[in-house]
Amino acid sequence: MQKLKIKTNYKSEVVDITKEIKEAVIKSGVKSGIVTIFCPHTTANVILFENSDTTLKRDLLSMLKDIVPFKEYSHSNARAHLKASFLRSNLTLIIENADVVLGQWQGIYLIEFDGPRERNVLLKVISD
Amino acid sequence: MQKLKIKTNYKSEVVDITKEIKEAVIKSGVKSGIVTIFCPHTTANVILFENSDTTLKRDLLSMLKDIVPFKEYSHSNARAHLKASFLRSNLTLIIENADVVLGQWQGIYLIEFDGPRERNVLLKVISD
Amino acid sequence: MQKLKIKTNYKSEVVDITKEIKEAVIKSGVKSGIVTIFCPHTTANVILFENSDTTLKRDLLSMLKDIVPFKEYSHSNARAHLKASFLRSNLTLIIENADVVLGQWQGIYLIEFDGPRERNVLLKVISD
Repeated sequence: MQKLKIKTNYKSEVVDITKEIKEAVIKSGVKSGIVTIFCPHTTANVILFENSDTTLKRDLLSMLKDIVPFKEYSHSNARAHLKASFLRSNLTLIIENADVVLGQWQGIYLIEFDGPRERNVLLKVISD
Repeated sequence: MQKLKIKTNYKSEVVDITKEIKEAVIKSGVKSGIVTIFCPHTTANVILFENSDTTLKRDLLSMLKDIVPFKEYSHSNARAHLKASFLRSNLTLIIENADVVLGQWQGIYLIEFDGPRERNVLLKVISD
Repeated sequence: MQKLKIKTNYKSEVVDITKEIKEAVIKSGVKSGIVTIFCPHTTANVILFENSDTTLKRDLLSMLKDIVPFKEYSHSNARAHLKASFLRSNLTLIIENADVVLGQWQGIYLIEFDGPRERNVLLKVISD
C-alpha cells in the first residue's frame, strides 16, 4: 500500500491528483492489472472528473450545494458528510503498459468538503 | 466467494456490517490485497459512512427522501430503486495486515430502502 | 484489457450491456476473481440497475433531470457532466464459475447523457 498526502486550501475544493496517482503506479512496478484508490475520510472523496474546463469544477461544487438541502440536520457538519456520501470514496482503475487507463477528458481528483486540511489518499496495486 | 446474510428491521435503515466484513477478510487468510464487497439487490446497497454519530444516518435517509422527488413514477417502488441508484452497490477496499483499511471515522454499512428483509452481501478477496 | 464498442441512439439512454460483459469474462478464461469495468468518458457511465421493468429506466433519467438544476452553468454541456458525476464511472464485480455474479434483478448498463455516440467500455479481469 502506498500513501499520498494531499494539501487542500479551501473549505470546498477539487484538486487534480492524476499525476501523483500515475507516479505511484509506476513506482509499484506493475505493468498490467488494477489499482484501488481509497480516501480514508468521511468529508472528502476521490472521483473521476472532466480535466480540461476548470469552470466545471465550480459547477460541480455549486450543484452539490443546491442538491443537499440547507435544512436543520442533527450533525454539525452534516452537509459535508452528505455531499461526500453522494460521490465515490474509492475508485478501481485499470493499469495497462504501466499507466492508469483514463479517457482523453478524464482526470483523478480529490474533492474536499471540509477543508483546508492535509488529506491521505491510499493506493493498492494488483497485478493480473 | 463468501456470503453474509444481514437482517434489516425497517423500511429504510443503515446497518453497520464492518465487523462482519473484517471477520470474513480474516477467514479468507489473505494478508495483503483488496476485497470487493457486492450487494446483489436493486433496493439496498453497501456504502462507506461515518461511524460515530448515529444521528448522521437519519440525516442521510432524510436527505435521500428530500432529493428523490415525490412524484408519479411508472414503477411501483421506483423511489427505493432510485435512492439505491445514487449510492454504490459495490465497494473495493484495501487489505493490509489481514485487515480492511478504513479511516478513523469510516464504517461499512448496508443501506436498506425496501425492508424489512434478509439481504445478502457477497465478498471476494484478491491477494496481491 | 478488453474493449467493447457500444452504440447509443439518443441524447439520454440506458443501454443493457450485461450480455457483452458476460461474454468478455468467458473470453478471458478466468473462472474465479473480479472484473473491473471502466467507461473512459465524462458524459456516460456504467451502472448496475434493475433489469426487468423498462419503465424504471425512464424514471431514472427523469429523476436525474429533476435533480440537476436547470440553471446557468459555466460549461456548455455542464448538466451532462454533472449527471454523470453522480453515478459510478467504474464497477468492480465478482466472477464465480466463469460468470459475473449479479442479483436476480440486476443488469449492467451503459448510461448515456450526451449521445448519440459510439462509446467504449473497457474491462480488466483479475484471477484470485
